[in-house]
Order: sequence, then structure tokens, then C-alpha cells
Amino acid sequence: MPTSSQWLNDEQTPFLLIDEVRFARNVGRLATRINQLGCQLRPHLKTLRSVDAAKYILPNFHAPATVSTLAEAEAFAQAGCTDLLYAVGIVPAKLARVAELIHSGVKLHILLDTEAQAQAVIDYQKHHNVPFSVFIEIDCDDHRGGLAPQDPQILAIAQLLHDNQVALTGLMTHSGGSYNAHNSDEIRQAAEQECHAVKIAAQQLKAQGLTCPVLSVGSTPTAHFAEDLDGITEVRAGVYTTFDLVMYNLGVCQLNDIAMHVVTAVIGHNAAKNWLLVDAGWMALSRDRGTAKQHCDYGYGLVCDDMGQPLSGCHVTQVNQEHGVIELPDHLTVSQFPVGTQLRILPNHACATAAMHQSYTVLKADGSKAVWPRILGW
Amino acid sequence: MPTSSQWLNDEQTPFLLIDEVRFARNVGRLATRINQLGCQLRPHLKTLRSVDAAKYILPNFHAPATVSTLAEAEAFAQAGCTDLLYAVGIVPAKLARVAELIHSGVKLHILLDTEAQAQAVIDYQKHHNVPFSVFIEIDCDDHRGGLAPQDPQILAIAQLLHDNQVALTGLMTHSGGSYNAHNSDEIRQAAEQECHAVKIAAQQLKAQGLTCPVLSVGSTPTAHFAEDLDGITEVRAGVYTTFDLVMYNLGVCQLNDIAMHVVTAVIGHNAAKNWLLVDAGWMALSRDRGTAKQHCDYGYGLVCDDMGQPLSGCHVTQVNQEHGVIELPDHLTVSQFPVGTQLRILPNHACATAAMHQSYTVLKADGSKAVWPRILGW
Repeated sequence: MPTSSQWLNDEQTPFLLIDEVRFARNVGRLATRINQLGCQLRPHLKTLRSVDAAKYILPNFHAPATVSTLAEAEAFAQAGCTDLLYAVGIVPAKLARVAELIHSGVKLHILLDTEAQAQAVIDYQKHHNVPFSVFIEIDCDDHRGGLAPQDPQILAIAQLLHDNQVALTGLMTHSGGSYNAHNSDEIRQAAEQECHAVKIAAQQLKAQGLTCPVLSVGSTPTAHFAEDLDGITEVRAGVYTTFDLVMYNLGVCQLNDIAMHVVTAVIGHNAAKNWLLVDAGWMALSRDRGTAKQHCDYGYGLVCDDMGQPLSGCHVTQVNQEHGVIELPDHLTVSQFPVGTQLRILPNHACATAAMHQSYTVLKADGSKAVWPRILGW
Repeated sequence: MPTSSQWLNDEQTPFLLIDEVRFARNVGRLATRINQLGCQLRPHLKTLRSVDAAKYILPNFHAPATVSTLAEAEAFAQAGCTDLLYAVGIVPAKLARVAELIHSGVKLHILLDTEAQAQAVIDYQKHHNVPFSVFIEIDCDDHRGGLAPQDPQILAIAQLLHDNQVALTGLMTHSGGSYNAHNSDEIRQAAEQECHAVKIAAQQLKAQGLTCPVLSVGSTPTAHFAEDLDGITEVRAGVYTTFDLVMYNLGVCQLNDIAMHVVTAVIGHNAAKNWLLVDAGWMALSRDRGTAKQHCDYGYGLVCDDMGQPLSGCHVTQVNQEHGVIELPDHLTVSQFPVGTQLRILPNHACATAAMHQSYTVLKADGSKAVWPRILGW
């Protein structure tokens, strides 16, 4: 398994590097796990937003997937995907684009949690004769949006959709709170809470003779710690394909599972302060400080050598647009890192770091290079 | 002067909106100021990285400008720009691209602060017969890189370049520290410090019979508060064209000078908590928290109504990838903001927010629409 290759030295820095071996291993690990629990995976494609990456992540393009924008839905549909959940609350102004995708043959499911949204969907369906498919968002941990599992609004929305022949396909929840867990027990609890929330909501519907076929849960932490998915139809997760330092701090992966580095070059020294300056600022790394509140704060990323070996205690401590500052620990000195030296930075939050790049450079298992373009915009 | 227009309601959210009237006013304000001080402006184009924007910012495309990446240098050169300073420390691996631009007729100046970099430039020039033009970076406030004004390395580098027929064009400094100023007096002091630093360094060279024609200083705060630019050749500034909340907190602009909004739509409510959910997360706003350490912390941005009027006390308080949370102040309730309502967010840091978008939607002075593409990558 190569951790580097000659062509890497000739690439213009900074750039985002994906390690194919680690990436494929991460993808396989969760797929096997969810399969063994008797459940189906609906991977979230928002981390890399890449058709090339999706070829690894999805068993085939008719398999279910999740997206965070209509731009993704349109691009993945263009590439042949046929079962997509747009997992951000729908606004009426976006229904025309949804309708166009449905008319083209894509099962594109939309998400909502208010009667007003449901009414807008009903009105559009009536006027434009488009068979929408709806998920209702359930709130399992009071962290963002969605309806509490026993909120009577769930029933009201389901009844409204039913009475107007709009398909209620699923109930979905996302344990965003699991990112704040302190140990694996808390992640397991969060996983149980996700399942409990959608099951309680489904019972409420069933008691009124309303059904929906899909119960959807998931986040990368809970997907890796859930022990019982009985009664759950599908699990969603996104960042598990590359992992990152936030997931490492949560105990979901090892450092050498992280399949994403930003490759940078030393552009200067501040010898008096023992600082390296590198050409990866927040434009290449993102401004994400996801590890700031965790037990180990990696600044703007953990520094590795040009083979990807972490340099202990070596973090990117400051960033400007195109400058990063690495305050070296005492056992290292700037003279060990001449101007031009390549280093690799492990990201705090892979989704945020990937979002700063328009394409990814891939180190393939055979040492060769690939380039995966990212789907851009909204 | 329009603050909105009918077509805005039909745009797909989220998107980045530039107000042409404010933008042009900001550009004119600094140009006039620097002109009155008898100095030349070398605007930094890194905020918007847009050829269309540069048509407002530069008097003509032969005027001096600054860029933060070679991708910008190549795109602006392609558009006709002929005098560009690449203001990030050069690494040997990038010299071939620099040489190509110089051969095409562009005065592309490079930046360095070590003898090793100077030697790499000398070697490349010798082997490839390309007339490089060098700026040496001077550190005026101990905030990042560059050489202290009295550092003998400055002389050593200048002598090395001179002995090898590489043109030393300028000395440049940037008061990054001015962003941390607490009042206008501190910004004025930072401006004096910038000028002092390059003048001291220039005297050192002059004493040894070495000259360089350009003394370059600048940052948006110091450019707006400098009172005496005697002996200085040029001033650099970037974010002044749009401004942002960080600059507002510093007292460099008024709220109604900020020419950049992220336009977003309400996608849900959490009525119990009096929260709005909007479709501008960190993908549209960036993760920048530049106001966190200032006297007023705006979270991830100050919320305005659909006409751009700020809603006092109304900030984006949490962000996920495609979700923003607005915790409404007590005098507002979610029912005033139905799903689909458009809001506008003023950004903490315009450079970081612009970096999340591949093009900008422009509200022109006559109410019409323009689209400015952004130059992407490195």
C-alpha cells in the first residue's frame, strides 16, 4: 500500500489528496457493519460531492443515497443515480427543480416538518401533476430542527399529505448531538435515541391507520456504534468515507484511517519563534475548528511528513487566506524543513476542508494518480 | 439606489449578492484617499478574485494589482493585467509558472524573505533566462512572516540578488496586526509602523549602495487611517471593496457600506426555542468567526430583512453544512418569518464568505442583474 508516489512531488501545492486504499477500506467497513445489522445504507454524498467517489460508496447507482443540495441531486442524477433523499428542509421556490428531476425518472425524496411546507407541496403536485415523495424530519436530540417524536404535528402533516394523495415515504432523524459525545457509551445512547425517535413517531401514525415504509436514522458516529437496528429501514452517514480529526477524537476511527490530507509546501520560516509558514491557509484547510471543544485540539489540522506520518504535537496554529503557521514543538527546528518541503495536514472536518477544493487528487492503490472533480454550487 | 429588485425573489437560495452602488462607492473612497495622500494604490484582488470586479477596482488593466495565488495571476493576466504582485512567499516549484507569465509580457513580482529562496530564483533565472522581479517581505508587527526592518538578512538577500543580476523591485510589509486594533489611534499607529518598517529597511540598503524602487505597505484598516505616506510608493488593500462586519467593528466602515450579503431562505422553525432555520450554513457563509474576539460578536453573520435592513440583535448563531440557525431576539417571533421568506446575512469576513461561492449575483445601480464568476483554485 503506497503512502506516497514520485508524481506527488511535482504537484502544485496546496492540493487535497485522497488515499484510495484508506477510502475504500472505510467505505467497506461501514457497508459490512450495516449489512450485518440487517439494515440498508443510504450514504450521504455531501462530503466529497463527487461522482467518482460515489462509484466506491454506492454498490450501484440505483442504490439509495442522500444529498445536501439540489445541485448534487442534479449532478448525481445526470450520472445515473435514481434514489436520492434531499435532506434539507424544502422551500416552495425549489419545488420546480425537484419536479424536473422526478419527471426525469429519479426518485427524489424531499424533507419537511411543517404543515405550511406540506401544503406548498400539495399545491404544486395538484397544479403540475408531479408525484412527490416526502420524508418528515423528526428531532431525536433537540439539537436543530425537526418535530419531537410525540409532536401531534407529525400526525397532522401525515394526514394532510394522505388526504391529498402526496406520498409519505419516510420518517428521518439525525443525531447531530452525537458529535458532542464524550465516549462510546454516549454514542451508543445517541444511536438508540435515533431509533427510538423514529419508531415512536411511526407508532403514532400507525395508531391512526397511516403508514410510511421507510424509517431512516444516522450520523457517522451512531452508524459505527449502533448495536440494534431492528425495525429501522436505513442508516445514513457521510464523513465516514474519509474520516477526520473530529471523528478520531470521538473514537470512531484511527489516525491512519483518515483518507484526506491537504498537501502543502513550506514557504518561509520565523526562526526566532520556531514557526514554519506554509502555503495552506484557510483557503485550503477551511476555517473549521471542530476539534476546539474536544479533548485534543488540533488547531487547523495535524501536521504529517511527506509520507503522511503524523508529527506528534505539530499543528497548524494560525491561518490567513493563503498562509498557515505551524508552531513547531521544541524537539523540531525550522532548519529541518527547508523552503519547498512538502507536508501533509490532516483535517479537522473533512466536509469543510473538501468544500474548499474544486477537485481532489487521488493516490490510487497502485501508486498512480486520479483526479476527482467536485460538484459545485447549490 | 435600489436595495432590492423583483428578480431577486426568483433566485435560488443561497447565493452571494454584491451591491454595485456600495461596491463602487467603497472603491472610489479609497482610491481618492490614497491619491490625495500622493500615493498609488496596488489593490489586492484576492477578496472576490473576479475579472468583472477588477474592472471597477483598477483604473485600467496596466495598473498595479496584488494577488494571493498563481491561479489569480494567470487569470488576471489572461484578462489583460500586466503588473501583478504575487504576495505569498515563493517556493521553487512555482517558478516555472511565474516564468511563463513573465515570458508572456506580465510584470509578475514575487515575494521572498530567505537567502535560500533568493538562491533558487537566481538559479532558475540563470538556467532559463527569465528576468525575475523580487520583493522582500518586511515584518512590521511580528505577526506572521518577513524579516524585521533591521535584520541583516535583508542586506544579504539584496546583495545576493544584485550580484546575480536579479532585479530587487521592492520592499513590502503588511500590518496584519491592525486587524486586532481596539480603536482608530491604534490603527493610525499601525499605519505609521508599516511605513517606518519599510523605510528603515530601505535605508539599510541605501547605506550599502543598493536600491529598490518600490516601498509597498498596506492593509484595509491602515490604508483608511494612514495620515502620512511620504516616501511610500504604493498602498495595498483588499477587503475594502466590499467591507464586512470585522471592518465595521474596527470602525473602518459603516454597516450600510458593506456591499456583500448572503441571501438565504427560511426552511423551518423551532417555535419552542424561537429559532429560524435557514438554507445558509457554513457552505454559504464560511466558518469564519472573525468577530468572535471583537467588541460585538455577530456569530456567523448579522441578519437583515429582504431589503438589506439589519434586524437588530439577530445573528446566525449556529451553522452546519447547509443549515443555519437564527436564534431570534425576544421582540421577534418565528411566525413573522414563514418558510420561504428571504433574508440577507452580512458576513464576518468577506474574503472567507466569497471563497465559498463560484460566482456572485450583482444588483446593479439600475436594478438589473449581473453575474461575476470567481477565479477558482491555486
